[in-house]
Formats: sequence, C-alpha cells, structure tokens
Amino acid sequence: MTSTDWGRVNFGSDGLVPVVAQDAITGRVLMVAYANAEALALALATHQGVYWSRSRQEIWIKGATSGHTQKLVEALLDCDGDAVLYRVEQTGPACHTGAQSCFDPTPTDGEAA
Amino acid sequence: MTSTDWGRVNFGSDGLVPVVAQDAITGRVLMVAYANAEALALALATHQGVYWSRSRQEIWIKGATSGHTQKLVEALLDCDGDAVLYRVEQTGPACHTGAQSCFDPTPTDGEAA
Repeated sequence: MTSTDWGRVNFGSDGLVPVVAQDAITGRVLMVAYANAEALALALATHQGVYWSRSRQEIWIKGATSGHTQKLVEALLDCDGDAVLYRVEQTGPACHTGAQSCFDPTPTDGEAA
Repeated sequence: MTSTDWGRVNFGSDGLVPVVAQDAITGRVLMVAYANAEALALALATHQGVYWSRSRQEIWIKGATSGHTQKLVEALLDCDGDAVLYRVEQTGPACHTGAQSCFDPTPTDGEAA
C-alpha cells in the first residue's frame, strides 16, 4: 500500500466515490464500481476488493458469493480525491457475465461472445 | 473502434457517465472523468478524449488549452452500460499537476513529487 492520505477522499453527495479496478498483472481495466467510506475502509483493512452495491444498497465484498475474489495489491487516490484505483489480483472473471473484464465486447455489441 | 452499441449507455440522473482513460501503450490508468451524450459523441466522431467538465459545466476537449491531448484509440462500454473506457495515446502528462497519471502519489500523500 502507498502512504495515500485517505482523509482527502471527496465522496459525492451520495456518499460514494467511483472505483476503477485494474488487474495488477495484466494491466486490464476490469470494472468500475463505487465505494462509500465503510467499503473503502474495509478494502484497505482486509486487502480485498470491497465496494458499495448501488443496486442492493449494501457492502459488496467482490467474490463473496461467486468466489471471484480480488486481492487488493494497491489502492490509489487521484489528484483531486474523487476517484479511486484498486490494483487487484483477480481470481476468475471479474464480470458477472463470465467475461474477464466488464469492458469486454458483449454479444449485443454485435461481436461473438 | 469496436462495434459497441452506444445506444445502450446508461447515463446517470445528471446525464453523465464516468469515463476511465487508460494509456493504450503503457496500460496505465491516467484519469477518471465524465461524459455526457454530446461529449461521448464528439469523442467517437473526432477520435479525441472529450469529456464534460463538471466544474466548468462545459464540453472539455482534453488538451485543448494544455496541448496534452488524447488520441482516442478505442472506446469501450461496460457490461451494464454505466461506465466507459477510453483507451488513448496520451501526449504529455495526463494530470493537471504535471504528473503522468492523476493516480500518481502526490506530495500531500507524504511521498516525493
């Protein structure tokens, strides 16, 4: 972990900050999700990819149900404190579709799965 | 460009979607910003990193004033349409602080600039 000053996180009016998860080995951008203060603190304390699920309105420990966990290698805050980067070691696919990355082209984009 | 179906972008209630800019050569995550429909359309049409500046409330063509432009190599939409990835060739530093990436540690984080 770096010596990032996590006190300078600028959470939005909804209490959330966007989080980009990047594969620390391949460099691929895996997903974009959100964290509230509790999720971020849990991520930093447990070295896991932890988020706030906007759809379920609850803490979301990535892989808790799917087994597709993220080991948090490094967490970085951007220059103005309103975005976070999780550099992770991803187990299995990051995307709920089974794709390695949520940014992989989908069949609805007119490409083969 | 991929054959992404840009009609499935889920803009937020504020009309914006978060955009991650990644260096297409080094794989580094450079910045997180936002696009509205107009900015996204301009990015795709002009093959440049174009955003919506939330602070200035205007279209923001990255590098228009600084010269630190982004050539848009590829734009990707995530699985549920609520995040965009710009893969770019970055000219000069991406960050207004002069750092290559907005996620580089800053002096306020207790590290050398």
